[in-house]
Amino acid sequence: MIIVNTGDGKGKTTASIGQIIRSLGHGNKVCLIQLFKGKYFYGEQNILTELEGLEFFSFASEHPYCIEGITLEEAKEKCIPAAQKLAELAASEKRYDLIVLEEFNIALRDGFLDKIKFIDLVKKLSEKSDIVITGRAAPQELIDIADLVTEMKEIKHPFQKGISAKKGIEF
Amino acid sequence: MIIVNTGDGKGKTTASIGQIIRSLGHGNKVCLIQLFKGKYFYGEQNILTELEGLEFFSFASEHPYCIEGITLEEAKEKCIPAAQKLAELAASEKRYDLIVLEEFNIALRDGFLDKIKFIDLVKKLSEKSDIVITGRAAPQELIDIADLVTEMKEIKHPFQKGISAKKGIEF
Repeated sequence: MIIVNTGDGKGKTTASIGQIIRSLGHGNKVCLIQLFKGKYFYGEQNILTELEGLEFFSFASEHPYCIEGITLEEAKEKCIPAAQKLAELAASEKRYDLIVLEEFNIALRDGFLDKIKFIDLVKKLSEKSDIVITGRAAPQELIDIADLVTEMKEIKHPFQKGISAKKGIEF
Repeated sequence: MIIVNTGDGKGKTTASIGQIIRSLGHGNKVCLIQLFKGKYFYGEQNILTELEGLEFFSFASEHPYCIEGITLEEAKEKCIPAAQKLAELAASEKRYDLIVLEEFNIALRDGFLDKIKFIDLVKKLSEKSDIVITGRAAPQELIDIADLVTEMKEIKHPFQKGISAKKGIEF
């Protein structure tokens, strides 16, 4: 099953973490690959890294829109190992029940990953694993091949009032 | 901060679990009170019950719309201890960083909880804790007092094709 969490609201990443916890709780094998999670130390990392059954990879921690001093070209280069990891998973005999691709929609939106190649890899991976892909602005081509798509729609957010990210809530 | 996860799409409960994991990962104290979670064994329960810093209560496991043989009146009665627990938390000296009220929007929608009393308790609790309330059909009075509201909007769901809930994904 291919699952997409998109939209401009809060809950895309936390829902994927919840999905990981749910799956691990059934004794499943899970692989989490995250992008662009370098701005804060996210509390969940302390817990996730301790849980049995989860393999955790992080690439391209900085995104130019969040962290100064990195160019789009540099961010794109740092996404190459993420694409390689995906290709490796698709080619491997190893099977995960669930693969979570955190913020990959952003990498697709910004042209850091080749959309056609990515979609082919996701389709291939989905033959043996459930796949969750998160990030705002999911491309239509991904929505078209997905089985389950949720738009996390922002109805109200403290950011609208200029309040900054709160520890334990946004990270 | 008062946070509401509502809407007809997937991700309300998983996002609240992710929020719990994030908060616990920062060493916070968290209280989870859930309603209507008796239809399946949810994988996350195996993990959540093992985590330090989390207190976990479950009331009114059956909802008449999901499980046969229980009346609306019986479900309403089973929600009384949940309301009592909330009042107890509001009156207590004890402080949690985060309180998660799973599916309470459903109890409000169905008249199992008194809306005015509930909103007063949430306001009071929010003076010392962040509160997450989940469930479709959040009442407008709750949205009005919330700081952060996300609508999980169903764009695509296998249920639409008559495919039933999948272990590790929906429970």
